[in-house]
Amino acid sequence: MSAVVRVGVVGVGIMGADHVERLAGRIAHAELVAVADPDEVRAKELASHHDGVRSTGDALELITSDDVDAVVLASPGFVHEEQVLACLAAGKPVLCEKPLTMDSESSLRIVRADREVEAATGRPLVQVGFMRRFDPEYARLRSVLAGGSLGRTLLLHNVHRNASVPNPDFRSEMIVRDSLVHEVDVARFLFGEEVVSVQVLSPAPTSLAAAGVIDPQVALFTMAGGGIVTNEVFVNSQVGYEVRCEAVAERGSVVIGRPSSGAYSTALAMDGVGQWGGTVPADYRERFATAYDLEVQAWVDSVRAGTSVGPTAWDGYAATAVSTAGMASLASGERVPVDLVDPLTLSQNASSTKEPS
Amino acid sequence: MSAVVRVGVVGVGIMGADHVERLAGRIAHAELVAVADPDEVRAKELASHHDGVRSTGDALELITSDDVDAVVLASPGFVHEEQVLACLAAGKPVLCEKPLTMDSESSLRIVRADREVEAATGRPLVQVGFMRRFDPEYARLRSVLAGGSLGRTLLLHNVHRNASVPNPDFRSEMIVRDSLVHEVDVARFLFGEEVVSVQVLSPAPTSLAAAGVIDPQVALFTMAGGGIVTNEVFVNSQVGYEVRCEAVAERGSVVIGRPSSGAYSTALAMDGVGQWGGTVPADYRERFATAYDLEVQAWVDSVRAGTSVGPTAWDGYAATAVSTAGMASLASGERVPVDLVDPLTLSQNASSTKEPS
Amino acid sequence: MSAVVRVGVVGVGIMGADHVERLAGRIAHAELVAVADPDEVRAKELASHHDGVRSTGDALELITSDDVDAVVLASPGFVHEEQVLACLAAGKPVLCEKPLTMDSESSLRIVRADREVEAATGRPLVQVGFMRRFDPEYARLRSVLAGGSLGRTLLLHNVHRNASVPNPDFRSEMIVRDSLVHEVDVARFLFGEEVVSVQVLSPAPTSLAAAGVIDPQVALFTMAGGGIVTNEVFVNSQVGYEVRCEAVAERGSVVIGRPSSGAYSTALAMDGVGQWGGTVPADYRERFATAYDLEVQAWVDSVRAGTSVGPTAWDGYAATAVSTAGMASLASGERVPVDLVDPLTLSQNASSTKEPS
Amino acid sequence: MSAVVRVGVVGVGIMGADHVERLAGRIAHAELVAVADPDEVRAKELASHHDGVRSTGDALELITSDDVDAVVLASPGFVHEEQVLACLAAGKPVLCEKPLTMDSESSLRIVRADREVEAATGRPLVQVGFMRRFDPEYARLRSVLAGGSLGRTLLLHNVHRNASVPNPDFRSEMIVRDSLVHEVDVARFLFGEEVVSVQVLSPAPTSLAAAGVIDPQVALFTMAGGGIVTNEVFVNSQVGYEVRCEAVAERGSVVIGRPSSGAYSTALAMDGVGQWGGTVPADYRERFATAYDLEVQAWVDSVRAGTSVGPTAWDGYAATAVSTAGMASLASGERVPVDLVDPLTLSQNASSTKEPS
Repeated sequence: MSAVVRVGVVGVGIMGADHVERLAGRIAHAELVAVADPDEVRAKELASHHDGVRSTGDALELITSDDVDAVVLASPGFVHEEQVLACLAAGKPVLCEKPLTMDSESSLRIVRADREVEAATGRPLVQVGFMRRFDPEYARLRSVLAGGSLGRTLLLHNVHRNASVPNPDFRSEMIVRDSLVHEVDVARFLFGEEVVSVQVLSPAPTSLAAAGVIDPQVALFTMAGGGIVTNEVFVNSQVGYEVRCEAVAERGSVVIGRPSSGAYSTALAMDGVGQWGGTVPADYRERFATAYDLEVQAWVDSVRAGTSVGPTAWDGYAATAVSTAGMASLASGERVPVDLVDPLTLSQNASSTKEPS
Repeated sequence: MSAVVRVGVVGVGIMGADHVERLAGRIAHAELVAVADPDEVRAKELASHHDGVRSTGDALELITSDDVDAVVLASPGFVHEEQVLACLAAGKPVLCEKPLTMDSESSLRIVRADREVEAATGRPLVQVGFMRRFDPEYARLRSVLAGGSLGRTLLLHNVHRNASVPNPDFRSEMIVRDSLVHEVDVARFLFGEEVVSVQVLSPAPTSLAAAGVIDPQVALFTMAGGGIVTNEVFVNSQVGYEVRCEAVAERGSVVIGRPSSGAYSTALAMDGVGQWGGTVPADYRERFATAYDLEVQAWVDSVRAGTSVGPTAWDGYAATAVSTAGMASLASGERVPVDLVDPLTLSQNASSTKEPS
Repeated sequence: MSAVVRVGVVGVGIMGADHVERLAGRIAHAELVAVADPDEVRAKELASHHDGVRSTGDALELITSDDVDAVVLASPGFVHEEQVLACLAAGKPVLCEKPLTMDSESSLRIVRADREVEAATGRPLVQVGFMRRFDPEYARLRSVLAGGSLGRTLLLHNVHRNASVPNPDFRSEMIVRDSLVHEVDVARFLFGEEVVSVQVLSPAPTSLAAAGVIDPQVALFTMAGGGIVTNEVFVNSQVGYEVRCEAVAERGSVVIGRPSSGAYSTALAMDGVGQWGGTVPADYRERFATAYDLEVQAWVDSVRAGTSVGPTAWDGYAATAVSTAGMASLASGERVPVDLVDPLTLSQNASSTKEPS
Repeated sequence: MSAVVRVGVVGVGIMGADHVERLAGRIAHAELVAVADPDEVRAKELASHHDGVRSTGDALELITSDDVDAVVLASPGFVHEEQVLACLAAGKPVLCEKPLTMDSESSLRIVRADREVEAATGRPLVQVGFMRRFDPEYARLRSVLAGGSLGRTLLLHNVHRNASVPNPDFRSEMIVRDSLVHEVDVARFLFGEEVVSVQVLSPAPTSLAAAGVIDPQVALFTMAGGGIVTNEVFVNSQVGYEVRCEAVAERGSVVIGRPSSGAYSTALAMDGVGQWGGTVPADYRERFATAYDLEVQAWVDSVRAGTSVGPTAWDGYAATAVSTAGMASLASGERVPVDLVDPLTLSQNASSTKEPS
């Protein structure tokens, strides 16, 4: 087992900067060595806060550099295919933020390439950044459901709310591709099955979304075993970041993500009326801080041990396929089947919905 | 204002017996005078527990009797039309348990008859037993949403679970007609709008339901203003009676019916593992005891005052129409539009989703 | 059993007016016939809202009047002795608001007088208005503890907060006499034992209390069996009316009165930070509305049935004795033993901490 | 800043083994190099699970060894004085588990020695393992109270329960010294003041404690500014590890440690009654896992940076002094003043209740 994993981070946006700080300060057995971004000024500025970290404008240079053992990709989705394939060519483990790629075909190419690596070396190299699988609440929910004491899982209801989306170019499809995709992975993770069809409904939108944006959206998934998942996705809720999941099984139900975790206070609020309660997380970094830490630590540990954990390239591909069907359904209003290749036609099977070790 | 309302109860099943006990013991300004049921032995037995209460096997005799000022109908739905119309003919206020009738046409005949009474006397006589409108939590939710501080209501998610349905003749349609119908009224009450279409989905059923019964069911309502309602109805949950509602509005959300109301304890449960929590209500009588008391008190008060409160014949008709569409959808799997007459074609408008005064 | 109990209410302050509205509108088998108050104008005004209710300035006239079967005393504590004894002399059941009287000696005189009535007629006539015994949460807590599955009760921690006390003449002793006294009864009710000593501690007071007022206070009770009760009483909390109790037993604990009962919402609060939670009750009438209704209905039912329920004269006397010791402790800071007569010296035993039937 | 801190751990009991696993697997910038324990077999066994970690039976050898930069002491309290002083003599930062020592005098000798180091080098070397200051809930509570929006802090109520204490030699004093001492530090941390007197009350004990053991105990602290702290400590609660704190301030209150954090489920429990709720943590390692991780990471970071964070030797000394007074009070039942030296007589002031940076 190698003593330390030397990590390079590609992409220095919000997510990339968050990973840089994590790798530099809170992850054992990792050494942050380089950051890359086309915006070289920003990359340099970020690197300058950490001793011995260099910056580059060239992601492929970072990926192929001898001083980098493993790569975190926090770049935009449309460059993921090239960068992941470069990691595979270089034989380097890669933790790729979601979405794996922007369309099913390119994701499938990555699946096939990673299977070839696995066939050759005994070990796949791609982990996709569905961090919720490492969140203690989701992990415990998975554990309870898989344990079987509640019987078979029948239904899920997911709630996903953001306070707002400031992006002036925001389009309705982004709710499916960037937000709902997390619920797709949750459904696959908790059921241990593929999503076979998806339907996205368009309620009368909130007046607080940009003109033309369908928000909130209600999405339905049908699982391979006949289970049904209802999803609320609302990205201009005005309140904060709220992510909840209720699983209904044959002998009981479980709710995670209640806003009441931890402290509550009673205090005087507006209008002289006493209130009890607490604050809602502002964003995903606050809500899933622990999940990201555990995800990256588990990834580093698996790199050291020469093993793999967490969501695979197949998981990334399957999520992209569901998102693609979901965007079609958003346009048509109809239920759209999800088109996945038969995994048996791939060179090697993958357990696509395996839980983190 | 009359000092006391002399009430007769038709039907002595679980619901009727519950109303008898309520009227005899907890409702001010009401005097229980008679009970009627085709099962005369049971009616007599029930009456014998209360001084001065007589029994009869003939509901119409009770309805037309001079010693009865007003009638509570807790008889089976298929005799409601005849009995409600008899009340109207006799000029007597009637609190009719849901469903108003078994099909839209008969419910519409009651609406028309009650409108004629109202046109002639200034006052309708029919109140339908959607008791949840009187539940303090639902009433408060309605008040918050109608108050407008959270903006327009966008979505509801309703959860409706029973521990089990022992009836050996239970059929899937009964989930729509007897359970989902409450959620129909909740949706109309909280949105203040009609349901325009309904779709009932059939997940893979629990193995703990009778063979052939589709349970749980997931139902979708589209409201007249474009709002969407998702509903889980699960009548063999094994756990208890759980009824929850989450409303999502433009500037906030509200959940009612959380299981955490009231006390919680920490104690040693099975397997030596400490537990925190509390008990789930066993059935609707426990969960909605206060709602029923408030409903009947408000009805008695309105009878005394010569006014009307609560859900109207139109509310009963509209709920029946949605249930009818829902049963068609359960069979087809498709979205089914709800067929309501134009209320303007009736002799007089009704404010169909008015809250209790 | 009498059909209807004709009730007179003495005292038309906040509490009396609340009882008048309750008796006139929500209590079965009761008929409000008269109200009395030295402020005859106010009494007349209150009576005028209810058909057939007369008013008088003379409480003793009301008590002895033939048209009054039973009396609710909501007058100030210092006139309770005279009025309760008048009820006993008239042979009329009386529901006396707390405190029973202002000192132990006068309360003991009532105990003795009520025992004489009981010895002569088989039935005591005094019920003291410790309404919490009828609150569903406290009643359930008592039931759980008395059921024995958690073993012996070891400790209680009570929290009692009011938003503020506007009275310009408010003195520290009133926290003991008027607020802590409820916790005294709670302790006696839940343990089923007497309080044998009390100590009232004076923390550094809030700057928001009037000058010289010791608020909050921390009080300790030692129970006859060695259990200990810690109490926080804080009457200028600024927030609202919060009453909680945690009971610790040998095999588990139970908390009641959590602020989370019922609905919670998430919404944007001050400073753009999302909040989850709900509102705190404004005062005791909101928090204990159901308890008061159940208390008065149970009292009316017992009057009809010729029986007795709820807290007895002895309970009122014992609470007064603990309050008296508590006020002495507030002055000295020392633990003060509670001085109760030996109940065996009374003409007849009373089960002082019997739960409501 | 040094790249990596080479850490030695003294003591390989439950706490020491927990720290070994933490330092080896989850702490950035730390390298576990050695473990020491008089039980050399156990030390060797523990070391063997981690590459490059050596073991020794001689704690002082480890402390003075050139390959150890900093020391974690998880040895029994009675050897802490010798070992901490050895660390100071060797100029090595030390994280010492609580209690700092077994009596005030020896703790004070450590305070003086650490002040001398600080006077000479500008930096104290002792951090005491009151990990709760790093628990996110306690840290947030401290932050809310110190922020001032709720006004001055008036009261605390602490609850501290363990399922059981299997030790056959367990004595009542150990509740004060080993459990209550955490609440002492919480009180000092949240008030930012010293405890000036303590009183330990002895309720009638649970029948499930060993004969002669006073359990539960109720302890009262008076703070230097007049605030009062009530504490329940119960180490045979049968249920699990429950640690809660409610702070009452002039304009609001805050509760942390509610058992409802995270998930809840509804499921069928014993006797066919549905339950909602969740599991209680089994012990402190589960409840405070995150706190320990954050504590040790902050300590390692401060060692690298040449600074200091967290509870100081003074905090350890003050806690020991309060425990000593508490044990005297347990014996006498009386309030006992806490005897602290005047910090001005020490060579240099310490901010004794400073929050973690």
